[in-house]
Amino acid sequence: MNIGYERVTLQAGFWQSVREKNAHVSLKNVYRRFAETGRFAALRCEKQENPPHIFFDSDVAKWLEAAAYLQAEFPDEEVRAIIDETVDTIVRNQLPCGYFNSYYQVYKPDKIFMERTEHELYCAGHLIEAAVALDKCGVNARLLPAMKKYADYIYERFFVRRDTGFTTCGHPEIELALVRLYEHTGEGKYLELAGFFLDERGTRAEAVYPVMDRAYDQSHMPVREQREAVGHSVRALYLYIAMADVGRLTGDEALLGACRALFADIVRSKLYITGGAGSGWYGERFTIPYDLPNSEAYAETCAAIALAFFCERLAKTGNRAQYHATLERALYNNILAGESADGKGFYYVNPLEADAEYAAYACTVPGLPFKPLLERAEVFSCSCCPPNLVRFFAQVGGFAYSEEGGTLFVNQYMNSDISACGIGLSLRTGMPYAGNVHITAKGRGRLALRIPVWQTQISCQVDGAFVQPEAKEDYLYFDVDGEIQIEVLFAMAPRFVYANEHVRADSGRKAVEYGPFVLCAEERDNGGELFGVEISSLEHASVEQTQQGICVRVPAKRLCTDGALYSYLPPERRSFTLTLIPYYLWANRGENDMQVWFL
Amino acid sequence: MNIGYERVTLQAGFWQSVREKNAHVSLKNVYRRFAETGRFAALRCEKQENPPHIFFDSDVAKWLEAAAYLQAEFPDEEVRAIIDETVDTIVRNQLPCGYFNSYYQVYKPDKIFMERTEHELYCAGHLIEAAVALDKCGVNARLLPAMKKYADYIYERFFVRRDTGFTTCGHPEIELALVRLYEHTGEGKYLELAGFFLDERGTRAEAVYPVMDRAYDQSHMPVREQREAVGHSVRALYLYIAMADVGRLTGDEALLGACRALFADIVRSKLYITGGAGSGWYGERFTIPYDLPNSEAYAETCAAIALAFFCERLAKTGNRAQYHATLERALYNNILAGESADGKGFYYVNPLEADAEYAAYACTVPGLPFKPLLERAEVFSCSCCPPNLVRFFAQVGGFAYSEEGGTLFVNQYMNSDISACGIGLSLRTGMPYAGNVHITAKGRGRLALRIPVWQTQISCQVDGAFVQPEAKEDYLYFDVDGEIQIEVLFAMAPRFVYANEHVRADSGRKAVEYGPFVLCAEERDNGGELFGVEISSLEHASVEQTQQGICVRVPAKRLCTDGALYSYLPPERRSFTLTLIPYYLWANRGENDMQVWFL
Repeated sequence: MNIGYERVTLQAGFWQSVREKNAHVSLKNVYRRFAETGRFAALRCEKQENPPHIFFDSDVAKWLEAAAYLQAEFPDEEVRAIIDETVDTIVRNQLPCGYFNSYYQVYKPDKIFMERTEHELYCAGHLIEAAVALDKCGVNARLLPAMKKYADYIYERFFVRRDTGFTTCGHPEIELALVRLYEHTGEGKYLELAGFFLDERGTRAEAVYPVMDRAYDQSHMPVREQREAVGHSVRALYLYIAMADVGRLTGDEALLGACRALFADIVRSKLYITGGAGSGWYGERFTIPYDLPNSEAYAETCAAIALAFFCERLAKTGNRAQYHATLERALYNNILAGESADGKGFYYVNPLEADAEYAAYACTVPGLPFKPLLERAEVFSCSCCPPNLVRFFAQVGGFAYSEEGGTLFVNQYMNSDISACGIGLSLRTGMPYAGNVHITAKGRGRLALRIPVWQTQISCQVDGAFVQPEAKEDYLYFDVDGEIQIEVLFAMAPRFVYANEHVRADSGRKAVEYGPFVLCAEERDNGGELFGVEISSLEHASVEQTQQGICVRVPAKRLCTDGALYSYLPPERRSFTLTLIPYYLWANRGENDMQVWFL
Repeated sequence: MNIGYERVTLQAGFWQSVREKNAHVSLKNVYRRFAETGRFAALRCEKQENPPHIFFDSDVAKWLEAAAYLQAEFPDEEVRAIIDETVDTIVRNQLPCGYFNSYYQVYKPDKIFMERTEHELYCAGHLIEAAVALDKCGVNARLLPAMKKYADYIYERFFVRRDTGFTTCGHPEIELALVRLYEHTGEGKYLELAGFFLDERGTRAEAVYPVMDRAYDQSHMPVREQREAVGHSVRALYLYIAMADVGRLTGDEALLGACRALFADIVRSKLYITGGAGSGWYGERFTIPYDLPNSEAYAETCAAIALAFFCERLAKTGNRAQYHATLERALYNNILAGESADGKGFYYVNPLEADAEYAAYACTVPGLPFKPLLERAEVFSCSCCPPNLVRFFAQVGGFAYSEEGGTLFVNQYMNSDISACGIGLSLRTGMPYAGNVHITAKGRGRLALRIPVWQTQISCQVDGAFVQPEAKEDYLYFDVDGEIQIEVLFAMAPRFVYANEHVRADSGRKAVEYGPFVLCAEERDNGGELFGVEISSLEHASVEQTQQGICVRVPAKRLCTDGALYSYLPPERRSFTLTLIPYYLWANRGENDMQVWFL
């Protein structure tokens, strides 16, 4: 089982910095922008001139969840007061039956539980998650009973009376939230209800989002039969998380089998090198295998977050290394890229190629459906990603360790201390910028360290002596008895990565990775025209530490033609030094071109 | 001046085959499908359950124009009867004031000349063009007076009374039609009205198409100030044709200067290698320089046709070689590709890359705004392209020759006979499949042959003796006195073409041309995965004559990876023989992948 973030003490380093920025800047800035855009006021359930969006409740709920996780380490009276006031507002306006939705209660009370596509249960799910988090963290105990009452009402209406206008929600989320409620309270009816929603999905023709198909919200077939990741990527991954949860908790191998097949489908043909999932901007959806356009990549931040959670859930069921390798890819690339360096701005969409001229043009064309955004925004009209990132980073330590069969597994390397499986462990590492890991382990037990897929060589010392530890299923095993010092080096070097030949967008091209990072080039460091840049070799690449992290410099060539649009003369190849930075740091220095795949 | 198709006697060969197919198959099939879809019935101006489209009139008008051109050489009683009956219907239903529009008269009589965006004057323009053609060809003399009356009414309302709801039409076309009416009748008021519409455009804020900007219909600035091709590409090019016409006829250098700048802008950065113009599917528009995506290319057939006419008009004003080089590019690639080999199917959109799997997927996604079409259709709901192609091919001989200063210019090589500038000329050629040209010229005069840009070597004989004719501005000059035999060989070989490094879609890639043809590879000849095909050299390419024309076989390599989505191993390069065919022949053997640009 994964070891929750609350048992992991992050120490100074990469992730603790992210978490500090999260507590001190992002949490507050998201609150400020949500307050300014009426998201908190909407909870008062008073009619307003500009009605709130149907999923405002979920935005606030994710913020509450994030705030809950951060309070123990970063107590803040102001945040605490907002939490309490917000909970009071929700509880005060909850209907006597338990129902709460700031949009439906006020604007469509006669349509409660009648409109499948309008996110009611999705909002309920996020409120339930917030309630569990607030209670678990000891921050606020009043939301949990209120949301239990709401969940009981949902149980009554959907499962017992079955008098609602639909059976399954158009946007999965309630299912995984009910599992969390079950795991926190131990009350089986919530797991039962989650299972019911899963069982019912795709078994009947229910209403779908206007102009969308049944695959869009994964209602095209029963969930146990699903083998291909299709439709809206966030909907899909939220559903798969719940399937993995319920499968694990009930021992339902059919559910777990479907989850494994869906994961394999994503990893085999539908995942950006950055860990982004869901390539199609139209419908924000998974499309077909190998359709991974770069400049029009959708790769929503919420989808990468959901993929990370899906990996974490699957890792609980065995074969953890492959899931943690994918989680790592999403974590250090697509997810981190979702937030600006200053913690205030967010990306919803995460392209792998940016053309500033085209983006500027797109802004001038009214109605153009896909407009690249070359700087992060503080809030969106559909602002699911910002609070999702804040709650994600708030609990990021929870991805580091797991315990299984008495062995303590190190899955993601973060400077941290932990006590589990009879071992008191203190881990310090140069990751993600360097591959050295230093561990002090005390006590008696077994320890396993994941071998990152990107390492080019491994060397291990225990108490100063070189050793060859047992390696099994991509983990290195160490026995701890007393106090030992473990030094492992997973060597890091810039490496070319090639995409499958079926990926049209990357054909004949290569990306450069360094450790867990996918690298990119920005116009700011390299001048324009990054698409026609050729890297023949990484032999002479140099890695430099910078204030932001690292940068890699490599000899490269730029294709230059004679100026005509078409010419019988091949382009000249002009040598220059290409500067590469981690992809996640892009777009922090103004609008400019960016490129991940090179000739 | 160009020599009209009616003075050029096409002889057996490539273009005469196209024209025969046009007369015997396309003209009739377009009629059949237009009749079945109510386009001819709409002219009766009776209310119908399903109202006609606002530009049905223009569809029929283009068909009438095509039928007119074909009657002299391919007389057909049935077609003649349809023409006469259609003209009768139009004349009978024309309002007493001269107005005719099958949509507005019936469905919105109170909105006549009030709605700028709804194509009234566009339809009028095409009806005027049809009337001129029918009269000039001696096929039907009744439509001309009727349409003159309509033009007079437009003159009265727009120019004299100025009491209409708009000043310039949202879709240019009336302007060029009025010039044709002026050239046919000699009545200056029509030229004056065309000039008025041009002068007024972009000088005031008029209504634009919903969700579009003023650049969309080229109303963003006065036409003489326009230097960049922007907005809807067919609208743009129809406007530019009229600007070139009026500029030439009135000696307006400001208009001609704008035309030359607009042409240069297109050729420098907005033209597909196939001669396609207008790359953006959204708004069917020109976008920014070098934005030329391949699989999502719009490159509407009507835009390539309009570009050919624009080139023809500009060639009348000097520097003809460059205009005919671009015309040739559009003619043998984008325009020919607009029609299926059997003459029944048509393309509206002409991509340079096709992915059959994606196209199949796109059909399953409701509302997806851009769906690739991998087989040509007989009719579209917006079916401007089919009759445009039919009228274009019907007059294609008109692009071959021009006369200027007593010299007979050969601009496009078509098997044909002609008498002009004191010379009786008979031209036979292997073009477009081979570069040999045999000319028998009698009489006394001067003859100039355009040097195609694609030739790799030139050799000339006059009466069996090798000569080095005078070469000037990309033409070879010959003096004719008596009867001479001229043999010219413009050597043809497969050649690589490279796009400017700013064209992202083609970066690091090359296309292959053979003579005037851009070549492409189809899955049917080569198996799947054409995007990862690398051609290193054309040294060992072989050219074969086939029933359809030619095919080129060249040693190539296919990139093959180890099956993973991402790999640290570079792809293997597996040798095979790539088969290339002329681009225009693609999609005639069922749905399959297609590729123009190779590694």
